[in-house]
Amino acid sequence: MNTIVTLGEIMLRLKSPSYERLFQSPLLEATFGGGEANVAVSLACLGLRSSYVTALPEGPIGDAALQQLSRYGVDTSRVIRASGRMGVYFLEAGSCQRPSSVIYDREGSAISLISSQAFDWTRVFSDARWFHCTGITPAISAEAALLSHTAIVAAKKAGCTVSLDLNYRKKLWGYGKTAPSVMGPLVSLCDVLIANEEDIQKSLGIKEPVAASMDDLDGYRALMETVQNRYPNLSYIAITLRQSVSADVNGWMALLRSPQGVYQSRRYDITDIVDRVGAGDAFSAGLIASLAEKPADAPYALEFATAASCLKHTISGDFNLSTRKEIEALLAGDSSGRVQR
Amino acid sequence: MNTIVTLGEIMLRLKSPSYERLFQSPLLEATFGGGEANVAVSLACLGLRSSYVTALPEGPIGDAALQQLSRYGVDTSRVIRASGRMGVYFLEAGSCQRPSSVIYDREGSAISLISSQAFDWTRVFSDARWFHCTGITPAISAEAALLSHTAIVAAKKAGCTVSLDLNYRKKLWGYGKTAPSVMGPLVSLCDVLIANEEDIQKSLGIKEPVAASMDDLDGYRALMETVQNRYPNLSYIAITLRQSVSADVNGWMALLRSPQGVYQSRRYDITDIVDRVGAGDAFSAGLIASLAEKPADAPYALEFATAASCLKHTISGDFNLSTRKEIEALLAGDSSGRVQR
Amino acid sequence: MNTIVTLGEIMLRLKSPSYERLFQSPLLEATFGGGEANVAVSLACLGLRSSYVTALPEGPIGDAALQQLSRYGVDTSRVIRASGRMGVYFLEAGSCQRPSSVIYDREGSAISLISSQAFDWTRVFSDARWFHCTGITPAISAEAALLSHTAIVAAKKAGCTVSLDLNYRKKLWGYGKTAPSVMGPLVSLCDVLIANEEDIQKSLGIKEPVAASMDDLDGYRALMETVQNRYPNLSYIAITLRQSVSADVNGWMALLRSPQGVYQSRRYDITDIVDRVGAGDAFSAGLIASLAEKPADAPYALEFATAASCLKHTISGDFNLSTRKEIEALLAGDSSGRVQR
Amino acid sequence: MNTIVTLGEIMLRLKSPSYERLFQSPLLEATFGGGEANVAVSLACLGLRSSYVTALPEGPIGDAALQQLSRYGVDTSRVIRASGRMGVYFLEAGSCQRPSSVIYDREGSAISLISSQAFDWTRVFSDARWFHCTGITPAISAEAALLSHTAIVAAKKAGCTVSLDLNYRKKLWGYGKTAPSVMGPLVSLCDVLIANEEDIQKSLGIKEPVAASMDDLDGYRALMETVQNRYPNLSYIAITLRQSVSADVNGWMALLRSPQGVYQSRRYDITDIVDRVGAGDAFSAGLIASLAEKPADAPYALEFATAASCLKHTISGDFNLSTRKEIEALLAGDSSGRVQR
Amino acid sequence: MNTIVTLGEIMLRLKSPSYERLFQSPLLEATFGGGEANVAVSLACLGLRSSYVTALPEGPIGDAALQQLSRYGVDTSRVIRASGRMGVYFLEAGSCQRPSSVIYDREGSAISLISSQAFDWTRVFSDARWFHCTGITPAISAEAALLSHTAIVAAKKAGCTVSLDLNYRKKLWGYGKTAPSVMGPLVSLCDVLIANEEDIQKSLGIKEPVAASMDDLDGYRALMETVQNRYPNLSYIAITLRQSVSADVNGWMALLRSPQGVYQSRRYDITDIVDRVGAGDAFSAGLIASLAEKPADAPYALEFATAASCLKHTISGDFNLSTRKEIEALLAGDSSGRVQR
Amino acid sequence: MNTIVTLGEIMLRLKSPSYERLFQSPLLEATFGGGEANVAVSLACLGLRSSYVTALPEGPIGDAALQQLSRYGVDTSRVIRASGRMGVYFLEAGSCQRPSSVIYDREGSAISLISSQAFDWTRVFSDARWFHCTGITPAISAEAALLSHTAIVAAKKAGCTVSLDLNYRKKLWGYGKTAPSVMGPLVSLCDVLIANEEDIQKSLGIKEPVAASMDDLDGYRALMETVQNRYPNLSYIAITLRQSVSADVNGWMALLRSPQGVYQSRRYDITDIVDRVGAGDAFSAGLIASLAEKPADAPYALEFATAASCLKHTISGDFNLSTRKEIEALLAGDSSGRVQR
Repeated sequence: MNTIVTLGEIMLRLKSPSYERLFQSPLLEATFGGGEANVAVSLACLGLRSSYVTALPEGPIGDAALQQLSRYGVDTSRVIRASGRMGVYFLEAGSCQRPSSVIYDREGSAISLISSQAFDWTRVFSDARWFHCTGITPAISAEAALLSHTAIVAAKKAGCTVSLDLNYRKKLWGYGKTAPSVMGPLVSLCDVLIANEEDIQKSLGIKEPVAASMDDLDGYRALMETVQNRYPNLSYIAITLRQSVSADVNGWMALLRSPQGVYQSRRYDITDIVDRVGAGDAFSAGLIASLAEKPADAPYALEFATAASCLKHTISGDFNLSTRKEIEALLAGDSSGRVQR
Repeated sequence: MNTIVTLGEIMLRLKSPSYERLFQSPLLEATFGGGEANVAVSLACLGLRSSYVTALPEGPIGDAALQQLSRYGVDTSRVIRASGRMGVYFLEAGSCQRPSSVIYDREGSAISLISSQAFDWTRVFSDARWFHCTGITPAISAEAALLSHTAIVAAKKAGCTVSLDLNYRKKLWGYGKTAPSVMGPLVSLCDVLIANEEDIQKSLGIKEPVAASMDDLDGYRALMETVQNRYPNLSYIAITLRQSVSADVNGWMALLRSPQGVYQSRRYDITDIVDRVGAGDAFSAGLIASLAEKPADAPYALEFATAASCLKHTISGDFNLSTRKEIEALLAGDSSGRVQR
Repeated sequence: MNTIVTLGEIMLRLKSPSYERLFQSPLLEATFGGGEANVAVSLACLGLRSSYVTALPEGPIGDAALQQLSRYGVDTSRVIRASGRMGVYFLEAGSCQRPSSVIYDREGSAISLISSQAFDWTRVFSDARWFHCTGITPAISAEAALLSHTAIVAAKKAGCTVSLDLNYRKKLWGYGKTAPSVMGPLVSLCDVLIANEEDIQKSLGIKEPVAASMDDLDGYRALMETVQNRYPNLSYIAITLRQSVSADVNGWMALLRSPQGVYQSRRYDITDIVDRVGAGDAFSAGLIASLAEKPADAPYALEFATAASCLKHTISGDFNLSTRKEIEALLAGDSSGRVQR
Repeated sequence: MNTIVTLGEIMLRLKSPSYERLFQSPLLEATFGGGEANVAVSLACLGLRSSYVTALPEGPIGDAALQQLSRYGVDTSRVIRASGRMGVYFLEAGSCQRPSSVIYDREGSAISLISSQAFDWTRVFSDARWFHCTGITPAISAEAALLSHTAIVAAKKAGCTVSLDLNYRKKLWGYGKTAPSVMGPLVSLCDVLIANEEDIQKSLGIKEPVAASMDDLDGYRALMETVQNRYPNLSYIAITLRQSVSADVNGWMALLRSPQGVYQSRRYDITDIVDRVGAGDAFSAGLIASLAEKPADAPYALEFATAASCLKHTISGDFNLSTRKEIEALLAGDSSGRVQR
Repeated sequence: MNTIVTLGEIMLRLKSPSYERLFQSPLLEATFGGGEANVAVSLACLGLRSSYVTALPEGPIGDAALQQLSRYGVDTSRVIRASGRMGVYFLEAGSCQRPSSVIYDREGSAISLISSQAFDWTRVFSDARWFHCTGITPAISAEAALLSHTAIVAAKKAGCTVSLDLNYRKKLWGYGKTAPSVMGPLVSLCDVLIANEEDIQKSLGIKEPVAASMDDLDGYRALMETVQNRYPNLSYIAITLRQSVSADVNGWMALLRSPQGVYQSRRYDITDIVDRVGAGDAFSAGLIASLAEKPADAPYALEFATAASCLKHTISGDFNLSTRKEIEALLAGDSSGRVQR
Repeated sequence: MNTIVTLGEIMLRLKSPSYERLFQSPLLEATFGGGEANVAVSLACLGLRSSYVTALPEGPIGDAALQQLSRYGVDTSRVIRASGRMGVYFLEAGSCQRPSSVIYDREGSAISLISSQAFDWTRVFSDARWFHCTGITPAISAEAALLSHTAIVAAKKAGCTVSLDLNYRKKLWGYGKTAPSVMGPLVSLCDVLIANEEDIQKSLGIKEPVAASMDDLDGYRALMETVQNRYPNLSYIAITLRQSVSADVNGWMALLRSPQGVYQSRRYDITDIVDRVGAGDAFSAGLIASLAEKPADAPYALEFATAASCLKHTISGDFNLSTRKEIEALLAGDSSGRVQR
């Protein structure tokens, strides 16, 4: 009963090399990723039992996605092969004042089409203690929104802790429903909520103004109170704070509201970002891994999650391939980047 | 009045490097191609005025496709930007006994969704003397089949010669109609038909058995008679013959039935194929270029088209980047591959 | 009458990969570029009608240069194929305290040899409203200096606005004339002058000391006055200011003297430069595009040009592949580099 | 009770790109492989439960080796992390008259140092039905020879069928024992023997001359008889026949002596080899997979193994990434390499 | 009598591309390096006669190492080919808070096994004026420690100046002796000592606390006094100071204690490190080159060495490929990174 | 007195990757080569003392050329740095019926401009026993033709054996003299002549028809007689025979007329050519190495040269990096390409 289950859409990620514009030269880096899959891989890399649930088309592209999950130790035995495409996303890495850019090509993906009844939920959660999902899946189609709801209900029934990363994506949400109308009911079923300030505003319809500046942590704390008041079911609310100075330079920290109190992590100045996609997912995985093991130590969970996420910025691809040992070394204070030899 | 117009779907072509399996290493070669676009590029490389018509989505992927067409001199001013995706095809190059493999990911592409009324056909054919299309477009959707029909009718009305490459693709034709029911009426409107023996059988429903061997040219000739009898409107019928010894070694030749008689090209033994995708399109372009310039010289047109196509096998990517001078050198008999210096 | 014509030398650009020394590993990135060609491509990317004039040798290298111009929408129908070589330049990207280094191999290039009478100037400027050239071409040979002069005279006669980027290159100017003796007469024919402080000193022989520091903008303003007084024909004088902290970190801003007054752009701190070659050309193109469309709005033209140039620093290769939309987003204040998704 | 266990040494494989000499350019392709690991991966790709046993050092290099096994579905839960290095082998691909070349750097590897008592053999074979090993492991050290012997004895005790691929490697066998003195006793414990004619001569000390030509199949049959007579314990003896015309062109077939009779496979002419390393292992895996499922159908097992091995020649890297479907298509007679689309 | 001899271990350096984790993608950059070899190459690039002494195995890997030394002008005629492996080291480049990581795989290397008697020391030093070695070689094996001692004694006997870079490596020193017990006696034979504060503490067992901060230069000066007092034989003691802000951002300066006094170099802020491996060796080479030519000008030697080392941070690979001219330009004050053209 | 001196032009060789057309993708492989330099490298790789003489421009490009020569053991101490460019040649590799193509960009190269008096011929040949040159250098300029003549005269005076490879290049010879008028006098000074049938016809103006087929060896023998009669000074005449079936498939053999008689080598069928540029130079080097060591054994020299040249076809780049051991293995009859392990 100690598996952590995640559900979502894993996509083929096609990135132009280095800082090139898309198709500037005729080469694309082809890896796989997606919010929930990134969490699943991180959890496995941290040594936890991690199982990823999705629907993928038959054929070599779906096979390759599963191989990459298996490579990093994620169980894929609960994945369904179904009709529909494999979602694709194109990524161009920004630099300085030019932002990174994501182009989604995920219409008609298998996970967006599948019925929530296609899964045997009893089997999916048979050995699970935690279920994690995000606001991305409910944004892609009405079917996927229903699927998310069904999964959360089944997870709760199976006794799982449920975490949800709001992950608002403005380029999705095209099937006719507003984010708050879908996400609100989901949040009211969860135990752990992860978000940034924009997610909360856009996904939950909370209008409360936030300075969105690291200099106004009180504003973030007030926002957490608002969310907690609206969703008293939540045990933990985590907010990540990103200060985007440029595409290469970001400040990064987080807050965690727990039954024991509200904590604030140390702040990391990340000055030469290698790849920031998936940094939020690395935070979620760090938080889940820590809370699942030591639920009472919220401050440690917060620092561990923030350090894990900090390291993700230095790793190319969606997945956080940092080891527990590396995260602990950063937690222990060594951020000097001295050569290890 | 001397533009050659082609209409079809240009796709993003994603190929694994060298002879690697798809996703064996995390890199894909990203170029663009598609039957009709390949013909359009070949024609421009041969020095003809070539204009390509299609529908593409807005954004950098569609832009990149157009840039590649412009790069080689194809006019893209008649292309429409529309809703829908960019079609994608994945390619793995075979070797020896392992065949090359194509995986289509073109559901929901802009061209498959567009209404035939979205184009201003008078403008499309305003300066055209020839229109070329293939059996691929009618295979992708009912809308695209209607689009093909509308375009052919408009082209005829504008006084164009119309050529059609049957190009049967068994992985398409999924929208509920059989190939013969769609292709037959189109062929009955055309002037020039290009095909191989399988195309004729599958696309036109002609059951007549053919040995499909270069040793049975009489069989091919008989097949041409059958087609000619069924479609008396056709002025030229070209059949390409590929003898697949292995993924690397092919024999290649062609037959042309013209008002002047039936001709047989020389045979090329291509023993170290670099990329055979698009070889048929290179043939079509060579034939069109020759017939458009010298309609009376069918034997030359046949030899030119076959030589152009032979050279395509040595060039990576969908496009035949051979020059007229190179094709003429091969026609003149130099197939020794001696270094030019 | 709305084409913008540029004239100059497009070269094969051979760059060692990443930050490697030249030939450290046996690979070179092979693209094309050159001051005026970079402007022509930028103008086309911004949606203007752009035509590039030069002389190139016959053969695949010259063909490839033209293909890259066509790819980005530049008209090349006025290019002449002539005897002589294709110019080449080798580039090694610097980092930190090691500067980038350019090695020219452009002796005997077609454009350096061609007679100014080889061009049909009436045709070149038949639909032109603007002509742009730089101080690079007059530096390569006496013939090229005469060519520049002839072109400017013809452009003026055809009613064009003429802009000139001084672009002083100390590794050129080897044919026996001093820069001021050649450039002065050209400037006295132009309407728009673009330069930095070193260009003005070296190309125009103006000795007036400038602090060459962003802290001394008054010095730059005085320098502009001096230039304006000497060349009262100039309607606009633009000066770009680069503060080179290291090969990776630069400050960047510009001043513009217009009939309406002197303006100063916002300052950009560019901390992780991808490729600064061509940044000045991106500025010229931004300025020309804006002034050609809205000559009365000098402040906007200045800000647009500076923002365009800022973004160029993030793009590899000589060409500024930024879109108008991206430049406008930066102008609108978003320089945070947040992922667009 | 249906796992197939293999034991051996997985190495880091460092290959120069394409046909380059080692270190000609400063790049190496870094994958993993080794006789028994190749078999384990093939078995997993064919859908069987496959578990690989070895000793690997701690750290990222050993981790990466395990990740590649997991990626293709091989169970690695029985692998021990131990002291010693990771073995390395360097590979240069030959062409025409220049042979491929392997340089071993495997001295002091973990598997060569480990005690046979370090493994819990009961657990290793707890759910196993088949055990496969090769003559490579016994060749690397006295400890590894003892390990091989211990494993075979334990496997037999656990009720496994035991297969052994002789795989003679002249660059190994440096620890003071002759191959026959070590391999003979091992073979006398096995059920299935796989070898080529040189393996039999060098590993078993059988001097009987063989023409080593596909034209003298009787000689091979006689050799099989000799082996069978000496080792009556063997149920199956497979001999692979490679006719090396050049580094690119090989003939390939095999013979199988079974209780039902002696069979001879079809012959494959492989004219453009992509990578022949691991072809023998692909044969072993195909044979084991077939015999494990349908022990009574020796002819099918032989053809399946030979076809699997034929396809391996077209795939880069040590692993045979052919699918069962592709092998069956080749078995069904399609060796034409026609594009699948 | 003007050759500078260095002795040590040159290794195959295998680095993952860009900032990737080891084996994240299946490619490694394969170059060669090692502390003393790096010094030898730098000296040759600076125009001095440089000869490198080591033992290497026969075969293409050892050959390739020698070729790279020859390429940059290092004499390799005194290298011995011997039994044992080629040492290997794996390198992963860090970024931001993630440190670079070195994994040694050098057990059993030829140089670690060779007897000090295998070299003809008279010949080795026949035309030498300087001998340089480091604390790395004595750390790898008892034999190599003896070899180092023997070489130093022979060099002194031949009249050479002897320099030693302490270069403490915690991942080595595994053969049973402590660093101070081995290094102390070596230092007492030398003329020039190069180190950082950690080297001094760990290699010489000096416990004296140092703030290890550039703000406490007095602490470093005191440390130099302690060393000088303990080893009065030393003519020069150089200490390099690295302030590791992150893996990309370092401060860098050095101190030199000479007979004329103690000097302090200018400080370099290196904000976008390309490759810091070998930076210390670049310092050593710069110091040796200067002292060998102008022993009386200690301040210049210090500044030259520090500038050379600063530039090394911008060059990929172990070797400092900066030219004397580039170092002098930096010394002359140009650290702006302006493009040279 | 045992150095072999070669003189010629080493160029930067820029090749498109794999079989791509030039500039199809934006990457070029950048190595160095040229007829005589290739011979010099081969000789050094075979263990002979080899010194290469040329004129190169100052700067990193010339430096890189010298570094590549030094890397393979060629002495470059007699090279002069002079004004002029570095010659460049572009190479596109052909396949099947598409020939490889060479584009020269060597106008104004240092060697084409240099005076023959710039070299100190006494020093150049001070320790030489053999001098080798080709018909390429005399083809590039009148100065270079004079240089070749001067060098040969000086070499003879210094007691050297002189060999000359005619190497006719139709794309050169543009300075106003015919090949026969220049080459004839040079041949009349030499001892060893190397050529193919076209070289003899074009360079020496011998009209005698040759079938140019391996089936007409008598024709070749007659041609050798004609040459011998015209140039009785020649001790050895070698003719190489290439049968170009396609760009990938060639037959290769050679004839040698020596004082002892006329010999004919074995014939090699090279079916998967990796790079045939430099194959003739590999032949020359093999012949020179053998004749220099064992002048009396003409048959061995012929076979050695032919085998060396055969192996060159399998190696990318201009240089034959085959080892003596590999050539001897092929001579000994092993052309099977079996993996060496």
